[in-house]
Amino acid sequence: MKKVVLAFSGGLDTSYCVKYLAEDCQLEVHSVIVNTGGFSPEELAAIEAHAYALGVTKHITLHETQAYYQHCIRYLIFGNVLKNNTYPLSVSAERIYQALAIARTAKELGADFVAHGSTGAGNDQVRFDLIFNIMIPEITILTPIRDQQLSRQQEIDYLKAHGVNMNFEKAAYSINKGLWGTSVGGKETLTSAGYLPEEAFPTAQTKNTPEELKLVFEKGELKGVNERQFADPVEAIQHLSDLAAPFGIGRDIHVGDTIIGIKGRVGFEAAAPLIIIKAHHTLEKHVLTKWQLYWKEQLANWYGNLLHEGQFLDPVMRNIEKFLTDTQESVSGTVTVGLAPYRFYVKGIESPFDLMASEFGAYGEMNNAWSGEDVRGFSKIFGNQTMIHYQVNGK
Amino acid sequence: MKKVVLAFSGGLDTSYCVKYLAEDCQLEVHSVIVNTGGFSPEELAAIEAHAYALGVTKHITLHETQAYYQHCIRYLIFGNVLKNNTYPLSVSAERIYQALAIARTAKELGADFVAHGSTGAGNDQVRFDLIFNIMIPEITILTPIRDQQLSRQQEIDYLKAHGVNMNFEKAAYSINKGLWGTSVGGKETLTSAGYLPEEAFPTAQTKNTPEELKLVFEKGELKGVNERQFADPVEAIQHLSDLAAPFGIGRDIHVGDTIIGIKGRVGFEAAAPLIIIKAHHTLEKHVLTKWQLYWKEQLANWYGNLLHEGQFLDPVMRNIEKFLTDTQESVSGTVTVGLAPYRFYVKGIESPFDLMASEFGAYGEMNNAWSGEDVRGFSKIFGNQTMIHYQVNGK
Amino acid sequence: MKKVVLAFSGGLDTSYCVKYLAEDCQLEVHSVIVNTGGFSPEELAAIEAHAYALGVTKHITLHETQAYYQHCIRYLIFGNVLKNNTYPLSVSAERIYQALAIARTAKELGADFVAHGSTGAGNDQVRFDLIFNIMIPEITILTPIRDQQLSRQQEIDYLKAHGVNMNFEKAAYSINKGLWGTSVGGKETLTSAGYLPEEAFPTAQTKNTPEELKLVFEKGELKGVNERQFADPVEAIQHLSDLAAPFGIGRDIHVGDTIIGIKGRVGFEAAAPLIIIKAHHTLEKHVLTKWQLYWKEQLANWYGNLLHEGQFLDPVMRNIEKFLTDTQESVSGTVTVGLAPYRFYVKGIESPFDLMASEFGAYGEMNNAWSGEDVRGFSKIFGNQTMIHYQVNGK
Amino acid sequence: MKKVVLAFSGGLDTSYCVKYLAEDCQLEVHSVIVNTGGFSPEELAAIEAHAYALGVTKHITLHETQAYYQHCIRYLIFGNVLKNNTYPLSVSAERIYQALAIARTAKELGADFVAHGSTGAGNDQVRFDLIFNIMIPEITILTPIRDQQLSRQQEIDYLKAHGVNMNFEKAAYSINKGLWGTSVGGKETLTSAGYLPEEAFPTAQTKNTPEELKLVFEKGELKGVNERQFADPVEAIQHLSDLAAPFGIGRDIHVGDTIIGIKGRVGFEAAAPLIIIKAHHTLEKHVLTKWQLYWKEQLANWYGNLLHEGQFLDPVMRNIEKFLTDTQESVSGTVTVGLAPYRFYVKGIESPFDLMASEFGAYGEMNNAWSGEDVRGFSKIFGNQTMIHYQVNGK
Repeated sequence: MKKVVLAFSGGLDTSYCVKYLAEDCQLEVHSVIVNTGGFSPEELAAIEAHAYALGVTKHITLHETQAYYQHCIRYLIFGNVLKNNTYPLSVSAERIYQALAIARTAKELGADFVAHGSTGAGNDQVRFDLIFNIMIPEITILTPIRDQQLSRQQEIDYLKAHGVNMNFEKAAYSINKGLWGTSVGGKETLTSAGYLPEEAFPTAQTKNTPEELKLVFEKGELKGVNERQFADPVEAIQHLSDLAAPFGIGRDIHVGDTIIGIKGRVGFEAAAPLIIIKAHHTLEKHVLTKWQLYWKEQLANWYGNLLHEGQFLDPVMRNIEKFLTDTQESVSGTVTVGLAPYRFYVKGIESPFDLMASEFGAYGEMNNAWSGEDVRGFSKIFGNQTMIHYQVNGK
Repeated sequence: MKKVVLAFSGGLDTSYCVKYLAEDCQLEVHSVIVNTGGFSPEELAAIEAHAYALGVTKHITLHETQAYYQHCIRYLIFGNVLKNNTYPLSVSAERIYQALAIARTAKELGADFVAHGSTGAGNDQVRFDLIFNIMIPEITILTPIRDQQLSRQQEIDYLKAHGVNMNFEKAAYSINKGLWGTSVGGKETLTSAGYLPEEAFPTAQTKNTPEELKLVFEKGELKGVNERQFADPVEAIQHLSDLAAPFGIGRDIHVGDTIIGIKGRVGFEAAAPLIIIKAHHTLEKHVLTKWQLYWKEQLANWYGNLLHEGQFLDPVMRNIEKFLTDTQESVSGTVTVGLAPYRFYVKGIESPFDLMASEFGAYGEMNNAWSGEDVRGFSKIFGNQTMIHYQVNGK
Repeated sequence: MKKVVLAFSGGLDTSYCVKYLAEDCQLEVHSVIVNTGGFSPEELAAIEAHAYALGVTKHITLHETQAYYQHCIRYLIFGNVLKNNTYPLSVSAERIYQALAIARTAKELGADFVAHGSTGAGNDQVRFDLIFNIMIPEITILTPIRDQQLSRQQEIDYLKAHGVNMNFEKAAYSINKGLWGTSVGGKETLTSAGYLPEEAFPTAQTKNTPEELKLVFEKGELKGVNERQFADPVEAIQHLSDLAAPFGIGRDIHVGDTIIGIKGRVGFEAAAPLIIIKAHHTLEKHVLTKWQLYWKEQLANWYGNLLHEGQFLDPVMRNIEKFLTDTQESVSGTVTVGLAPYRFYVKGIESPFDLMASEFGAYGEMNNAWSGEDVRGFSKIFGNQTMIHYQVNGK
Repeated sequence: MKKVVLAFSGGLDTSYCVKYLAEDCQLEVHSVIVNTGGFSPEELAAIEAHAYALGVTKHITLHETQAYYQHCIRYLIFGNVLKNNTYPLSVSAERIYQALAIARTAKELGADFVAHGSTGAGNDQVRFDLIFNIMIPEITILTPIRDQQLSRQQEIDYLKAHGVNMNFEKAAYSINKGLWGTSVGGKETLTSAGYLPEEAFPTAQTKNTPEELKLVFEKGELKGVNERQFADPVEAIQHLSDLAAPFGIGRDIHVGDTIIGIKGRVGFEAAAPLIIIKAHHTLEKHVLTKWQLYWKEQLANWYGNLLHEGQFLDPVMRNIEKFLTDTQESVSGTVTVGLAPYRFYVKGIESPFDLMASEFGAYGEMNNAWSGEDVRGFSKIFGNQTMIHYQVNGK
């Protein structure tokens, strides 16, 4: 019997895939769920039980949160990556790491096929396809949902006809949760004009009293929140999320270009990512030079775009990571952040590497590192070419 | 008697300049104040009276708000320009337009000298110097404050000794108000860690009940707010500011690189600019292609940087303006914005040019403009080079 | 009977297409050849005769050289576009213009199908597909050669079986000639190591005595060669080609990334394009500012890449054209070029817009527009941030 | 007696400086010459004798060629850096390394002053000033030539009056020789139209018979020329120069923007740098991905610009070096180059990392890694957004 490794989430689509691959295709199904920080042990156990109930030969749970942080999230922080200045790429990054883990498993198991349950209308199908084509080109990809274009009801009917008993009710909002944020889709995000209602967001807004946070960064990584030190930045991120999400912070809607060329809109809640990025960026504005900030932004935006489009394995990504890492040598210090209902703001920073240190002259104040005469000369030379341009071309 | 045109604000520094230029230098002083949207008629009248009381030969008030909008602010909107993703360049842009108006006046009056009251520690000195060096290289620039490095008390003593009677009390926060926002400096912004207190911001936060706004854009320009249509975008901006500022919206601290190489920090309040830019940008995400968005951002950030650094007259700025204007053909539509205390958020957009229009397939939903087979082929080709790279280089 | 418009070159592949579409598919075949400067009237007449002999219902010759120059080549000159610093995009640009003309014709004729004879291994198939998908999405694309993957011999056998009598001999080198250069493919370009022999290049090297040329540019366009003025830049380009190609100038091999991800190698001969671009670029170095040169290069390289990849219709291309055109206001003057066997070099330029004009100070010579003291101040301020960086971070 | 360290070349200007600093300023003069590959032992000995004859307290010769290669030239090769697509930055790079060595020496000797002999009209003054301001801000910079603006004759008169006997004849062309090329200035380069005559270039064109070279690169560095292996790339560069320069290869005139805003023109002869860069770049086109090539070019051009402008010490330069180095892992292979009088051309490459390897499908030929159907799907999706744009906006 031939073997298929299936990326499994436990939802309707991938449940259909299990049955279809096992029964109609007569394959030995190995379902794999990859945890990148979004599932509790209870949820994972329930998914496992569901998989076996559906009839998989083997169900595997992969814990990839650390690898995901070390090889991906870390660089999104170094680069202050917000797609279109808005979205922390919560799902984009996660899907890549899931696909990589699935590909590795398919190879280890000597699978004949690898399957994913994506539809033909989103980004995820391309991300899975790309990673599989590159890492395991010798294994054939199966995509039952994309190929068959079944309606939700048709899938339910099929499952019922095959004796499956599960919750077939459609949630009002589809949620995808991970370490780097939760995406939220619903009827509003299918339009250009609608906004998600309060209840669509996974974390209820319950905190109303403003708080102040101290975030401690070491070489660009979050290592402390208030009094607590964290050896593991993943824990720091999760702790920050626990503190900030109940304020209703970090909610927005991202509209952007999908890999397949259409525009797509997705809601999200990402309190910790947004706070970390804004705090980290502010710290960088104090400790990096103008051109470091400029080129970091160029490379990091590109890094985000290629990641979003599933091109994480292009070797230029490794080159960019080297650049970004090298810039973080002096990105250490403490950032103070104010939290309030539905918003946060950076109050200020402290760092031994702060280039704003006053002994070199304060902005707008008296100073002694240079003279007014120096600036007069600077302005003369700095405007030289444009002055000549106007002399030559007229005004 | 030789003639000097002085950029005059009515504050301590430029008041000192009037007296010094007139008495010590024996020059005929023509004081000029340039209104770029920050002064009321009453304030302008008071400044004029003060100038004559100080002994200027002639005081001139120039109304540049329209020119400032048409030749500068408009492009900052087209480009969604936020310096370091934060600051709408409120003062940077304004100072350039003031310098241009002063230079023109100095030339028209046949002045022998042109003077500004900037210190030797900020950006404004370079902006004035640059514009004057380029536009009126034949007129000598005088900078008494920068050259003499007097303390505040020395200036006061000098003025008192010359019989000047004015308010010598120092404001806790220095404020610079214009159409595109108000900057706020104070003891906190001289440090890296301090945040401005509530009272430092010019508009008191008095509105607490959430409101919803409809912003109407035509080819990138704000032409309507809720039910009101505006032929003049300047009025639309001012109206939006009146509606939004009392929420305490648009406050932040910008830290960035000054032209003279040191880091500087400045608070600001810019409700209308921040709302307009975020709304305009969201609309663009719906109507422009991916590469239009990418290149607009590249060029607009550069435009902002050169503007910030006083290089507004470099001809590349005109080239960029042509590019930006050409992208705005389809940037028309209505953006819905939610206002709440200290924050706002974009709810959604409506536009006849919306590329997200559902007839071409909706993100994540069934569609009919392409097939799953098309995407499978796309993914194959899209990942071709990286696949080959891994085959050649190993994994 | 249904109607197909076929992009026709008269070669083996498109000859096969005529027969296959007419006989096997029972379609009314309208063959179209688009001249973008590479065909003589005699060649076009022969192709027409061949088309009718094959049995097309109608053969159409479209003269697109002017449109091609006005809407495409002009911008490649403005942008000094050389793919990978080497290749003037001779074929890439031409193919787009051919596809656009074919699409327009198919629409005008109310065709049911549009066909091209590209194989499945090159760039041209994507260019045709893209333009057709965008401009005439309602017309189905037929690609017999790509779909059937016939060998050369199979095509010949089919044609012979259908009574076709034509020259079936394979040329040693496949040649594609157009206004903007000639591409050359052969067995050497299928390897990474081989170089094309002398006889592969279409123009024999016969001139050995060095010559000097004066190229006159007006707003970026070539309007004169030596004593001759040209109202039509197309004629100027052709005249320059006649003068320079017999020197064996403008030959090279381009290796680059195809749209489908593999690396490809192609020889070319493009004397006029290479000379024009180098001369035009040198003129620009004299008349444009540093940042104009920088941003022109950024945008023009992108323009070239999108053009190469068939994305000529992305609206960002129109935006870039506006930018480029605006930079050419002062790109007027005369460039002196030396021609010698297999090489050319730019000797110098003359222009009323030359920013190097000596009255503003000559490089390395005494001057009077600024003082040594000015430069001393400039250097102080210009290095301020890095100086502070070293003070803070140690050396 | 106070101590000055003087950057000394032995020419008229720095000879004047020795005398002036020793006699008029009563300083103990330590003259330093930095060899970056341009001086023979005989020349260095002659310069030392001349220094002592002028009366320096101590003359020091620093051999910096290896450091210069390791910390600078290497990255110019990795980045294929040609300023304005023309000039290998021969002098720009060298001057920085000389300034760094001078600064280090001044610090080691506990000098009170550091001096350079640059005029007020070129780039070198800024490079020296910048490096000194950053590395030794506590040591005062002296610039007698810039400050006094003496004519050539005045300097000669002064030296003669102080008993100096040296060759006072002015060379027709000023030459600056180093590992990375020789710059040539003369009366023609002071104009925009003139070209340097044959005799201006330092290496006479004597070779007329075409040759073929095999250049062996290992991780981006030149390690072999024909049969010879070189452990030291510096020797490989010098050997290549010996082989190629007698062809008259590598001559051109660069026109560009000086740091002080004026346009400047300089001739150069740089056979080895130009051949290495073109060969290295061609190899990279075969072994790197499209986006690696794109971002390398972006960063490397910027690296070249900052180097040219004396900003070598900005920490972003170290970040860029990390990126560039990381891209060179697979840039190994052999490049065949043809040499002929006044020109060279790359014939082809061989590399185990060649992505053009034919097993993944050859450009324009039959293949088996993908199907025509895949490309059809690719084209559909690849053009999706522009297709939608045209549907929405009309054509």
